[in-house]
Amino acid sequence: MGHPVGVQAMTLAMDKAAQHDTGIVTVRQSNHYGIAGYYAMIALEREMIGLSLTNTHPVVAPTGGRRPTYGTNPLAIAVPTAGSLPFVLDMATSVVPRGRLEVAARRHVPLASGWALDAQGRETTNPEDALAGALLPLGGVAITPGYKGYGFATAIEILAAVLPGALYGPLVGPMWAEGSPSGLGQFFMAINVAAFDDPAAFKERVRDLLQRLKASPQADDATEILVAGEKEQRATIAARAQGVPLDAAVVSDLMRIADRYDVPAPSDVRAAP
Amino acid sequence: MGHPVGVQAMTLAMDKAAQHDTGIVTVRQSNHYGIAGYYAMIALEREMIGLSLTNTHPVVAPTGGRRPTYGTNPLAIAVPTAGSLPFVLDMATSVVPRGRLEVAARRHVPLASGWALDAQGRETTNPEDALAGALLPLGGVAITPGYKGYGFATAIEILAAVLPGALYGPLVGPMWAEGSPSGLGQFFMAINVAAFDDPAAFKERVRDLLQRLKASPQADDATEILVAGEKEQRATIAARAQGVPLDAAVVSDLMRIADRYDVPAPSDVRAAP
Repeated sequence: MGHPVGVQAMTLAMDKAAQHDTGIVTVRQSNHYGIAGYYAMIALEREMIGLSLTNTHPVVAPTGGRRPTYGTNPLAIAVPTAGSLPFVLDMATSVVPRGRLEVAARRHVPLASGWALDAQGRETTNPEDALAGALLPLGGVAITPGYKGYGFATAIEILAAVLPGALYGPLVGPMWAEGSPSGLGQFFMAINVAAFDDPAAFKERVRDLLQRLKASPQADDATEILVAGEKEQRATIAARAQGVPLDAAVVSDLMRIADRYDVPAPSDVRAAP
Repeated sequence: MGHPVGVQAMTLAMDKAAQHDTGIVTVRQSNHYGIAGYYAMIALEREMIGLSLTNTHPVVAPTGGRRPTYGTNPLAIAVPTAGSLPFVLDMATSVVPRGRLEVAARRHVPLASGWALDAQGRETTNPEDALAGALLPLGGVAITPGYKGYGFATAIEILAAVLPGALYGPLVGPMWAEGSPSGLGQFFMAINVAAFDDPAAFKERVRDLLQRLKASPQADDATEILVAGEKEQRATIAARAQGVPLDAAVVSDLMRIADRYDVPAPSDVRAAP
């Protein structure tokens, strides 16, 4: 189970970084570990930069290909900052997650161009055709240029899966198979800021960079420039104050499962209006 | 001057990795260091994974912005492999380098969509308008989604420039200014493969992954699937056998400079046919 081993591995990477300035811990025979950014953010408590990588089951085609051959391979990096602006980047290296195709198919709306290929490897905006095809890497097709996203995802596949000896690329099993382990790998790194500079001075420079990015002149059709993690920080604050919004279908599933196992449903779970 | 300090810093990172399994060295008060991948590839000689990052003078707009605020911030990573296929990723985190806009403007051809913004922050395919505007990050505009490329480039700005105390973001001076240093920063990392596994076994798995990617079913309009660094490897082999192709304008510039400083022009420099 990826979640507890992820916390353990990230903690070990931080212990190594406390002693040797930087630490890397890799994991094999793992499974889906949830939110990549969660582990990177653990490093913030110790004024370290945290990095977390994982491979996933194959859903993305390499540039020039048409079949899912490797995963959405996310990268997460969290950086200590002064002030309230965060810097927590948590991004899949595919254009979008596969769930976006499923949502579009259910709603019968077209995809944006540059998201996916059909089974013949042609760009498509039809979600059904895309689900039978493959996701594109960040950058899309070759001209925009998707080979950068494909190359970067391959680097993550190597660090997170090949280095620890986990399953990689098309060898990774499907996510929900119950008979066999998915065999994923993960890579955790911590960098001790104090080894490079006074952490307070570093954090102040990060704050300054983030504010300069936000203060950059806006495009005519934009209302705001964000930094990585800012949207998620606002959602966290709202959820803490008002609760976590759940889809009605999710609430009814939870109630049905609670009923089946004779667990009392919590009194404060209800569908969002 | 970025080039010699880059070699020195990468060598120091490898020495640290030989002793502590991984090593990071950062550089400040630096300048353009040439090819990012060159430094990453030095690590291959010692069966290490090499990583090299730099910030550059500002040419890219953040998502929602319209002004160049940070650089093309390249990432290079080189991985030891068995067999002859390389894995050397060397990519700018902008969609394209600024030079591609200049070439299109000289040739009066339109840009691909998703490359650049005009001065108002609207997507443009007009190279003149783009040169007055800004490059887009990898991923392009928000829907494709360029905020991933922007976030990743910001992470590189933090590691390569903010961490060592170099100039960052819009504070970086222009590339060709002679009066003041550009003040760039760089980040070099080496990971000792032997700390994780038998290097021969690791290299064999990397070779296997790369071959599986290449053997993935091709799109109808594709002739080949490449891995990162393969195209450059072929160009290197061709250049070693047949010489380095130079543009006629470059040859005449070199001859003019040789003449001005009374340096004999090498006999084997001639314009490519």
